[in-house]
Amino acid sequence: MPFSDFGSRFRGNTGIASLMNDLATLPAIGEGELLCRLGGGNPAAIASVSERFRKALLALASDATAFGRLYGVYASPQGHAGFIDALVSLLNTRLGWSVEAENIALTNGSQNAFFMLFNLLAGQSGNEVKRILLPVAPEYIGYADVSIGAPIFTARQPDIELIGDKRFKYHLHAIDAIDSDIAAICLSRPTNPSGNVVIDKELEALSALADRNGIPLIVDNAYGAPFPDIIHVDTTLVWHPSMILCMSLSKIGLPAARTGIVIASREIIAALSEMNAVTNLASNSVTAGMLAPLVASGEILDIAHNEIRPWYADRVALASRLFDEAFDGLPVRMHQPEGAIFLWIWFENLPGGCQALYEALKARGVIVVAGHHFFPGLEGDWPHRRECLRVSIASSEEELTTGLERMATLAREIYATA
Amino acid sequence: MPFSDFGSRFRGNTGIASLMNDLATLPAIGEGELLCRLGGGNPAAIASVSERFRKALLALASDATAFGRLYGVYASPQGHAGFIDALVSLLNTRLGWSVEAENIALTNGSQNAFFMLFNLLAGQSGNEVKRILLPVAPEYIGYADVSIGAPIFTARQPDIELIGDKRFKYHLHAIDAIDSDIAAICLSRPTNPSGNVVIDKELEALSALADRNGIPLIVDNAYGAPFPDIIHVDTTLVWHPSMILCMSLSKIGLPAARTGIVIASREIIAALSEMNAVTNLASNSVTAGMLAPLVASGEILDIAHNEIRPWYADRVALASRLFDEAFDGLPVRMHQPEGAIFLWIWFENLPGGCQALYEALKARGVIVVAGHHFFPGLEGDWPHRRECLRVSIASSEEELTTGLERMATLAREIYATA
Repeated sequence: MPFSDFGSRFRGNTGIASLMNDLATLPAIGEGELLCRLGGGNPAAIASVSERFRKALLALASDATAFGRLYGVYASPQGHAGFIDALVSLLNTRLGWSVEAENIALTNGSQNAFFMLFNLLAGQSGNEVKRILLPVAPEYIGYADVSIGAPIFTARQPDIELIGDKRFKYHLHAIDAIDSDIAAICLSRPTNPSGNVVIDKELEALSALADRNGIPLIVDNAYGAPFPDIIHVDTTLVWHPSMILCMSLSKIGLPAARTGIVIASREIIAALSEMNAVTNLASNSVTAGMLAPLVASGEILDIAHNEIRPWYADRVALASRLFDEAFDGLPVRMHQPEGAIFLWIWFENLPGGCQALYEALKARGVIVVAGHHFFPGLEGDWPHRRECLRVSIASSEEELTTGLERMATLAREIYATA
Repeated sequence: MPFSDFGSRFRGNTGIASLMNDLATLPAIGEGELLCRLGGGNPAAIASVSERFRKALLALASDATAFGRLYGVYASPQGHAGFIDALVSLLNTRLGWSVEAENIALTNGSQNAFFMLFNLLAGQSGNEVKRILLPVAPEYIGYADVSIGAPIFTARQPDIELIGDKRFKYHLHAIDAIDSDIAAICLSRPTNPSGNVVIDKELEALSALADRNGIPLIVDNAYGAPFPDIIHVDTTLVWHPSMILCMSLSKIGLPAARTGIVIASREIIAALSEMNAVTNLASNSVTAGMLAPLVASGEILDIAHNEIRPWYADRVALASRLFDEAFDGLPVRMHQPEGAIFLWIWFENLPGGCQALYEALKARGVIVVAGHHFFPGLEGDWPHRRECLRVSIASSEEELTTGLERMATLAREIYATA
């Protein structure tokens, strides 16, 4: 079948599809041996949280009028009005923001929001190709490949702060000026894959840089506050009209709902809604409708802050302890785990590189993601990007424990024979 | 805010967005006067049908394990595996088709399926721009504007059969050869807006034409059998691997779920899944999961055939009777209402054109859609396209009755003063 130029790009060539296919090919491990699935981005199954959402669904399913009104009617291209109104009220009343309904749109998940936003802002623009600046590499692999035309990302190498023997942290390398072809600055915070939380001062610097250049600062808040609130450091985030803030219902425990939230200027929201009408007609609204009462009452903040955040904080503490024991004496550090649902592990001067390490781990029944996938748009040869792995902490305690132990054993062998 | 070239296209310029904005601007009518909302594409609220779906949701919401497994886990980019397996079984066992799971993908609604399919197949392809042939204009307005680059549609004018005094029907005007730049042939059946069902012989001719040219025939089956089965003529439809068959859960009564179904060759499904991964990560799967048991048991066929189809058949009978009475003696015909949820009304030699008629109707509290929007890709000056209106029959009986009466009164005035 002949595909268009655009269509041909998807024939097994995209990073995310290759990765998913690869993750789906399970290794042949010994009988009775534990397979440690630490590769994907699925959030943890927290029973008490699932139960609260299930009760919201039960209430909806028990009310014939509410069911018919929600399931039987297309939402507007902007999204489910009741959910948006409830969110406006929550953000303004509980967080002191100044948001109006015209500043919010719902999308079929965050990935779809980024597909629309990046292509609305960047790509062919008159005689030039506008680009998106990712100021702190590594960044989310899902951004790559979404442009409808030529590649649109340019990324900057961060500064690395070494913390003790076993930790490190990325910092924004100060950017004084940007090229005129930059259409927007974008970063995830907390960052997938690194778990880095760009400190407030750095975020302010980026915001000022964006303002000086009359472009938006896109903040991917899929893991941040107010929900799912998987963030373990003291920072603040206040939306303002030159910021495009993206949120999601996935990491709160509802990834199958594919519901993303974009908070932006009226102009951006209007354009996004029109693009949504053409590419999706409307966004799905059944889970937004189910959750609207929990947003209106503020219960969603309680679920995030008092159930989801502590669950991941406990898991991070466990993982840190396991890591420090298992990797004792090895030149291996993990990024300061400040948020999100991953450990980002740096094997300094790794012999053979991270793809070989990933494959060797897979052969031993430990599925992770090789780090070199997470540097879209970064030019130059920075050895660091071949020295990291992303490890999910959302799976079972047993898989995480066994996986880290096997990883340390393998690392010892590799460094010993190098 | 400077947008990309692609982004600039959505600033109030797309047909579907203009239309939705326009439909949202309600007219100021007299107090106590009925507003007849016959403009949108929302399916009817059929209480007995809604109740069957609500019970399926209640069953899901009552099962903590099933809820957690469905809502808490990303589906694969191909879609919810349980729904796909159930559909394969239903189509093969009950309809005698030969479909495998690798032939089916779920999307975030039909509109998103068409966005992906049209851009996978058509648009810039090496040195030429490949196009989609719409062989029987008028066609669905939602196809327009979805191309990521230059316009990609070329449409053909159909033959018109006059039937009695008050009906007409479109027929495929035989196409012997097509240009080498045609990437696919596409038609909706039953057609939105006309309610036309291209007869089997015509569909076979199109299928043969597509096969001779090594391109797929895309059939938009959003209204057809086996579900929602809003089709009132005796035809058959069998999927074969050179056909891309698109279906939906919207017109069965669940438009908020945004769940589309694509049945196609393995190669098309693989490409669609990869494009879905990049643009959506995965499709939403919560309603697919809720419906999987009704598909597995075949109950969905019963709901469609014994509840949805007869409801619209009754409504069509009513609308036809009302139309014949109200428009008696006027040069106005409606398309043979063979399926879908609209009346397509042709005002022969309409003075002033359909946009003026639409506006005059709106001023009298009757919202419809002007017909000239439904001819994407048709070149040449065919007066017929300024002489039609699309009228929804899915709203209340009262709105439909009053709306048709007001329309006939206005038509009498227009033809009398011309």
